[in-house]
Amino acid sequence: MPGARPIGEALLTQNIYDDETFFAGYSRLPRSVHGLDGAPEWPVLRAMLPALAGKQVLDLGCGFGWFCRFAAGEGAARVLGADVSERMLERARRETDDSRVTYERADLESFAPPAGGFDLAYSSLAFHYIADLAGLFGRVHAALKPGGALVCSVEHPLLTAPARQEWLADSEGRESWAVNGYLDEGRRVSNWLAEGVVKRHRMIGTYLDLLSGAGFSLTRLVEWGPSPEQVAAEPAWAKERARPFFLLLSAQRN
Amino acid sequence: MPGARPIGEALLTQNIYDDETFFAGYSRLPRSVHGLDGAPEWPVLRAMLPALAGKQVLDLGCGFGWFCRFAAGEGAARVLGADVSERMLERARRETDDSRVTYERADLESFAPPAGGFDLAYSSLAFHYIADLAGLFGRVHAALKPGGALVCSVEHPLLTAPARQEWLADSEGRESWAVNGYLDEGRRVSNWLAEGVVKRHRMIGTYLDLLSGAGFSLTRLVEWGPSPEQVAAEPAWAKERARPFFLLLSAQRN
Repeated sequence: MPGARPIGEALLTQNIYDDETFFAGYSRLPRSVHGLDGAPEWPVLRAMLPALAGKQVLDLGCGFGWFCRFAAGEGAARVLGADVSERMLERARRETDDSRVTYERADLESFAPPAGGFDLAYSSLAFHYIADLAGLFGRVHAALKPGGALVCSVEHPLLTAPARQEWLADSEGRESWAVNGYLDEGRRVSNWLAEGVVKRHRMIGTYLDLLSGAGFSLTRLVEWGPSPEQVAAEPAWAKERARPFFLLLSAQRN
Repeated sequence: MPGARPIGEALLTQNIYDDETFFAGYSRLPRSVHGLDGAPEWPVLRAMLPALAGKQVLDLGCGFGWFCRFAAGEGAARVLGADVSERMLERARRETDDSRVTYERADLESFAPPAGGFDLAYSSLAFHYIADLAGLFGRVHAALKPGGALVCSVEHPLLTAPARQEWLADSEGRESWAVNGYLDEGRRVSNWLAEGVVKRHRMIGTYLDLLSGAGFSLTRLVEWGPSPEQVAAEPAWAKERARPFFLLLSAQRN
């Protein structure tokens, strides 16, 4: 299991989720305790999904299996959840009682899902950890039926870009998000929940080029931040409207 | 002619370009003196254009006519440049000696180009002044042949969002662009070249929704900033890599 420091480039994926400190912190997040309803972007992401009844569904980076169980509950015929974290899959299996859902331990850097049979590939907040996203998109394309959908969320590039994630006051005292490094894509090391979490910064245009290069057509792009209604319910989120937090994408396999 | 203060909402378009101070400042910009070659984003935008030989071309916000003359030079069969600024069109006409190029004074908020005949609609740095962009995209769609292209640049939302455009030092001294207000779309008043320039802030997702709603399919999206080679040639631009400056879009009419 990797330690808390950035690990060598020799290992394809860091698998930070099996780090003791990270896992403990992650397990306490609202989205880990309350599932999809604890994820404030979920209503918007959900609206980007196709109808799931009778469909073959793939979840890339399935974590505790919340989405897999949701898809089965919506009537999906088969759901395959893949994740690199043994600990997360352990809890996912424990909390899933549905024979249509299966879980597989897999490193998304190299995972090749069974080809040709899926209607939907879904991924929540996993792709910004992936170094070879072109390769993964290619394998997802091969796994989908023609006309199948890819729906995903990633950290917005405004969060992955800066060397340090921080708020600064502008000259009139407005809380402002400090942006630097946006045009310089690549590896970033942050200290979210544990030290030395390795992410990959990509511009929005690059995500779209990678999708299009792999044979997908974009159907929707949302720069997500909390809605005014969500801020009214959670006043501490007010400053989160200063910049988007997640990038939500849906695309169709050509 | 509008004064230097923000003008009332009664007038559809501000036409800041006919403001004395703004026009004087704008005329001294490298892109006004040197044309397309004075616009650092031009090589990337040019690569997004279809072949122009024999084509019918529309330039929305043609300014001094640099692109119109370029298109004619590339062999376009007909080029129509539209702009709200009488002063800019005056210079455009004076500097154009090509019967395939015509200019028309028009407010893009209401301009309806002749329907159905165009292969390309081009627009450089005009759409972020437009309040009713859905309406304009609809009229552009009607002006294009099926399969025709729309290629445009706008100020990147990271520039239109903040109440004040400014650089701040992060806690380690990195020059950082201060972002606020990103999720709150709408009217912005800035003081670029003259006081009280009115722009419209839109998120990237909103530009794409408007395109798709008007019957266009996105073909390319670039978040443009100077390349490392451009920074090597102009070291003062180094900090401009902290965040993109322009958003370049190309789309195909369905």
